[in-house]
Amino acid sequence: MAVNLSPPDKHALLPVAGIRLAVASAGIKTPGRKDVVLIEMAEGSHCAAVYTRNAFCAAPVIVAREHQQQATPRFLLVNSGNANAGTGDQGLAAARQCCGAVATHGHVLPQQVLPFSTGVIGQQLPVAKIEQALPSAFDNLSADGWFDAAYGIMTTDTVAKATSEHVLIDGREVTVTGISKGAGMIRPDMATMLAYIATDAAIAPELLQPLLNDVMNESFNRISVDGDTSTNDACVLMATGQAANTLIDNSHSAQYQQLADAVAKVCRYLAQAIVRDGEGATKFISIVVEQGKTSDECCQVAYTIAHSPLVKTALFASDPNWGRILACVGRSGLVELDLSKISIFLDDVCVIEAGQPALDYTEDKGQQVMNNAEISIRVLLGRGAASETVWTCDFSYDYVKINAEYRT
Amino acid sequence: MAVNLSPPDKHALLPVAGIRLAVASAGIKTPGRKDVVLIEMAEGSHCAAVYTRNAFCAAPVIVAREHQQQATPRFLLVNSGNANAGTGDQGLAAARQCCGAVATHGHVLPQQVLPFSTGVIGQQLPVAKIEQALPSAFDNLSADGWFDAAYGIMTTDTVAKATSEHVLIDGREVTVTGISKGAGMIRPDMATMLAYIATDAAIAPELLQPLLNDVMNESFNRISVDGDTSTNDACVLMATGQAANTLIDNSHSAQYQQLADAVAKVCRYLAQAIVRDGEGATKFISIVVEQGKTSDECCQVAYTIAHSPLVKTALFASDPNWGRILACVGRSGLVELDLSKISIFLDDVCVIEAGQPALDYTEDKGQQVMNNAEISIRVLLGRGAASETVWTCDFSYDYVKINAEYRT
Repeated sequence: MAVNLSPPDKHALLPVAGIRLAVASAGIKTPGRKDVVLIEMAEGSHCAAVYTRNAFCAAPVIVAREHQQQATPRFLLVNSGNANAGTGDQGLAAARQCCGAVATHGHVLPQQVLPFSTGVIGQQLPVAKIEQALPSAFDNLSADGWFDAAYGIMTTDTVAKATSEHVLIDGREVTVTGISKGAGMIRPDMATMLAYIATDAAIAPELLQPLLNDVMNESFNRISVDGDTSTNDACVLMATGQAANTLIDNSHSAQYQQLADAVAKVCRYLAQAIVRDGEGATKFISIVVEQGKTSDECCQVAYTIAHSPLVKTALFASDPNWGRILACVGRSGLVELDLSKISIFLDDVCVIEAGQPALDYTEDKGQQVMNNAEISIRVLLGRGAASETVWTCDFSYDYVKINAEYRT
Repeated sequence: MAVNLSPPDKHALLPVAGIRLAVASAGIKTPGRKDVVLIEMAEGSHCAAVYTRNAFCAAPVIVAREHQQQATPRFLLVNSGNANAGTGDQGLAAARQCCGAVATHGHVLPQQVLPFSTGVIGQQLPVAKIEQALPSAFDNLSADGWFDAAYGIMTTDTVAKATSEHVLIDGREVTVTGISKGAGMIRPDMATMLAYIATDAAIAPELLQPLLNDVMNESFNRISVDGDTSTNDACVLMATGQAANTLIDNSHSAQYQQLADAVAKVCRYLAQAIVRDGEGATKFISIVVEQGKTSDECCQVAYTIAHSPLVKTALFASDPNWGRILACVGRSGLVELDLSKISIFLDDVCVIEAGQPALDYTEDKGQQVMNNAEISIRVLLGRGAASETVWTCDFSYDYVKINAEYRT
């Protein structure tokens, strides 16, 4: 069902020097499923992370944030099948216990382990099952584990998401590889998105978090996924420093930009893959808002369109019902919006020009665009120079089916 | 498909002295359908109105607002089948032309006519068809026209919505009768809601708008329907002054409160009827948020829950997936939310108590509540004395079907 998204090619996924991964089966939700992923960072690695801003964030998010401040992470432990969210004090204890178990096996401090969970909210995490799976995970740690790890973190995903990039920095080959999972829903409210990206680039630890923040704003934070609203969302960027490039210690350098571009490329692929594999998705939609006063107001308009069930059902039906798009622009809350400056396009077809119905628009032209599997909706606000792009998908019967039957 | 909603009983709908109504067939979208409604107010009547705040509001809304400021309205002209929205200058001219035609027939000024349209966005209004239907509408004006008018304004509604209330004010019988239409969608972005309420009460003209505003906040503005976001939404309250009660000229008087209560009762019925008849609805949900600091923040939490596709699909599936409700509370954006003070109930069943999973909650108890057709979700915030209730419905396959096929 995913829109123009193929499973990763195992041989195209590049190992990142200093990173080893393994999967193991704890049978958390489905017996036999490889639902535990362990990621090891070599000594000397650093990592940056972005977590959900949901006030009711999951126990692993609380613990991961805490541990990241206390020590330099060496292991990430991810489980699918259970979000360990809404589980109260018992859930917190469970997350800590998992970290302790990894620490014992890995000969590190518990604070050097970051826990992540994804799956159903409100059920206690079966810690014993996870502990039992750990020896096998440690035995199987391998630099070639990215492919299996991409499968291990899946929940309602139908296609695994992974990609790699190579970039030459100062003549040294630097690798960036990442995996993500996400049901890419309309508007995720829960454990929907996890992403792990690693590079062997040598970069000053204090530059890693700003780099990740920048990249988020053109990837995971631009899918119609209010990335910061789920209870479990997390994105981790690891840097092992083993590529032998000269240490990148200036965020205004060409080298920093080269690395940022490569990381952005990986993140954009992984973010778009989440939308392409959106629950029940049959279309991949780019919403481009231009000529805004600020990035924020461009996002405001774009998300109003991206979150509208009416727009999304019309997209599912391949119906050029552009009135619903126009209504979204109108209700998006922009102050002093001058309608006479607004234009709206479906791909290259103008439907609204300077606030009026475009004279040469025909239903046929609109229909031709809507028949495509990939469509862009472009809104020109005529009030500034800012622009933003948000990616989303349509809203189908299968979305309802998947979410109505999620726990059965 | 509507949830516990019966069609109006023709004989239970009370005429309002001074109001006459008629329907006529213009064949705007469907040949033969009675798609034009004319409402006449006797001289001496006043009316108040609330319109959509969508910046891209429809042509009739622009004209109605303008006319209301210029003269005392005597006629309302409503058509279904076409929203006359997104139609530019031509749409404005069309709305004015319709008012002119009514004015000619009714021997009033064009500014004394308020136009309303509901239906598809982005198609030009067939003015000639409406003009042709007007003589028949004028011929059939009748005080008993409420029942037919309720049918005339329907679009994707499956049940007509109308109700009456009697109230004794100073020993005089006062009547309030109203009709509404609305697909009661998840989150309407377009021509979804119209409501017309009339009373024969004598009330000072300047008190009518504040009364309507107050009543809106416990009825039409509390259905999960961001009432102010569609291009065509409108609600009109008419007062003919023919009930022979002493003029109500003080908003702190008992008489004002008696009238406001009766109007509120009618509006609440009509608003809830829109939700009960929500597109594809199988459940009627009351979301009650208590112990907030302000009404606004109670609404903020309630609407976050009411607009969540994940909560709504779980409700459709009768799945007590309360984790999705908890995630909504967490992401609703309240500042300094203290999770340890939050409790959540499904009807009388506590699922979260003081921020922790309730100890005596069982899946069976949750399931019993979810099997009902009417369910309340109650959130206690533990930070103040404000409370608000919002009504919404679930999200089913039929919602997607109805909205995907709307224009076919």
